[in-house]
Amino acid sequence: MPQFRQNFITKEWVIVAPERSRRPDQFVRQTNHDHAELPAHDPGCPFCSGNESMTPPPSFVNKGPEGWRLRVVPNKFAAVNPELSPERRNDGLFLSAAGFGVAEVIIEHPAHNTTLALMTSTEVENVVSAYKQRFGSLAADPHIDLITIFRNHGRSAGTSLIHPHSQVIATPIVPPHVRHLMQQAIIYHDTHGTCPYCDMMKEELSQGVRIVMETPHHIAYCPWASRSPFETWIMPRRHYSRFDAMSEEETSDLAGLLRRSLLKLHRGLGDPDHNIVISTSPTSDGEVHYDHWRLNITPRLTTAAGFELGSGIFINTMPPEDAAAFLRDVPAE
Amino acid sequence: MPQFRQNFITKEWVIVAPERSRRPDQFVRQTNHDHAELPAHDPGCPFCSGNESMTPPPSFVNKGPEGWRLRVVPNKFAAVNPELSPERRNDGLFLSAAGFGVAEVIIEHPAHNTTLALMTSTEVENVVSAYKQRFGSLAADPHIDLITIFRNHGRSAGTSLIHPHSQVIATPIVPPHVRHLMQQAIIYHDTHGTCPYCDMMKEELSQGVRIVMETPHHIAYCPWASRSPFETWIMPRRHYSRFDAMSEEETSDLAGLLRRSLLKLHRGLGDPDHNIVISTSPTSDGEVHYDHWRLNITPRLTTAAGFELGSGIFINTMPPEDAAAFLRDVPAE
Repeated sequence: MPQFRQNFITKEWVIVAPERSRRPDQFVRQTNHDHAELPAHDPGCPFCSGNESMTPPPSFVNKGPEGWRLRVVPNKFAAVNPELSPERRNDGLFLSAAGFGVAEVIIEHPAHNTTLALMTSTEVENVVSAYKQRFGSLAADPHIDLITIFRNHGRSAGTSLIHPHSQVIATPIVPPHVRHLMQQAIIYHDTHGTCPYCDMMKEELSQGVRIVMETPHHIAYCPWASRSPFETWIMPRRHYSRFDAMSEEETSDLAGLLRRSLLKLHRGLGDPDHNIVISTSPTSDGEVHYDHWRLNITPRLTTAAGFELGSGIFINTMPPEDAAAFLRDVPAE
Repeated sequence: MPQFRQNFITKEWVIVAPERSRRPDQFVRQTNHDHAELPAHDPGCPFCSGNESMTPPPSFVNKGPEGWRLRVVPNKFAAVNPELSPERRNDGLFLSAAGFGVAEVIIEHPAHNTTLALMTSTEVENVVSAYKQRFGSLAADPHIDLITIFRNHGRSAGTSLIHPHSQVIATPIVPPHVRHLMQQAIIYHDTHGTCPYCDMMKEELSQGVRIVMETPHHIAYCPWASRSPFETWIMPRRHYSRFDAMSEEETSDLAGLLRRSLLKLHRGLGDPDHNIVISTSPTSDGEVHYDHWRLNITPRLTTAAGFELGSGIFINTMPPEDAAAFLRDVPAE
């Protein structure tokens, strides 16, 4: 049974989830692959079209005339479990809680051998729409307070399944890692009367050197204090904090920018391993003046070593101005 | 020129250090190796005995009758530079500072083909004594406030040189990552009148299930909220925060426990890649009631993926009780 445990000093949480170590070995990706060398259908893959019985029943399906385009299913090897109780308990001085939460897999496409960067705009839009739908649906659960939507691409980014997919983990626990961001943003808002992310984006647009692409509704840039080479953020120009408050027009605009940002990384850096994370405020806070959702793409080209683990100071060998200039020049059409 | 840059929202710092990307390719370790297959001397290795002219002059040497036993030299490919000014400057809304700091390499042994886990107790004691000497020497510099002593072992832990070595990076900047720990410890101390680390250690000793080894002066254990499998902490039983306040008897005791802890990991898990980090309070705070230094060993057996990056909640598939029980049973003599 998974369990949340709180660090006695930092108050950060971990999930101790021994069940996850029983993941089937055959799904562990040992080396990276070329998408062109993969089959379109793998009879042993639980996410491939025709193998729907290998997953639990879906919580969401995007259906087309020729079958499903995208399916969302509970994660069979989840680190959290919706059947458990979210109550905290003491174990001596130490605090724990049963691992209550919801973990889902967004199967992005019926084909085994594609990835977001190589999909059509419409297919990427299906994925972004599913992010929005799942965010809204999970946010309606009063026991859930933090929704993390993420995507792991490649072995050094923690992928264990090849078939293109994203993940959602929703927990009742908001850790200091997230709360600290909110507190900083509240202090900024109370001081300046503005959203710090809106001001940061304006400054980035004004300086210009770290902007990768702009669309009518979003910008993509390599931020001033990037922790790693080619780190890219996508943010909406309009101020809003709730990811599911995105309009249809904005959804389509975001999908186009995300696809082109990923295609630039794919072409420019040779399909690098990377993580995508969508950061949002705790759902019980509702729509707030001080937070602004953002999508972070982190290529896993370097390793956080002892200095980073100890000090929290990341050493980045690629100035974000150079990273942005490089990415601007990679064609994405 | 390296530069510190502050994240506009979190107030955390990064070091942008493009010079580091010019590290000589020949030193990059592409695959892990078996120590038994390495030569005792590599003519191209700047850290090998006989190649002293390949490094800048040492800041510390432990000499024996047959030559040096250990040397500390400035890091030629440092992310920080002692010649720069520590003053902050504004770039629009964004904050930076020249990359002032001291980066040193502790060459632990003249031989190319050994590592801490395989050294004698006396050799490991030389290393721990050098940690203490460098900590004391760098702490005396009024421009330095944070000293991070660390060791990267193996490719997935960020090693770029095979020859056994540790590193020290000393900076004027104390980031929120470290200050947050201090603030939590101060609040605890002000509430309970005790050091939170002393109380945590007592609780671990009382519960017992996560203790790996005990010596007269230190304990080694897998903490309650371990973020990753086999994470091991070593802490002094006596309360003190300044690492260089360690007595000679305590130094010897720590070296013995560190050697045996690493040997257990080496034998039990097949020489896993790992980081070692010594965490201490900012040096300008002096000896404090609320902090307690600790040495953290993190085997790099898992990958922090999108969920960890976004939420700060780590998923650990190995309960620390099971990790400690496993390590207790591995012989270390």
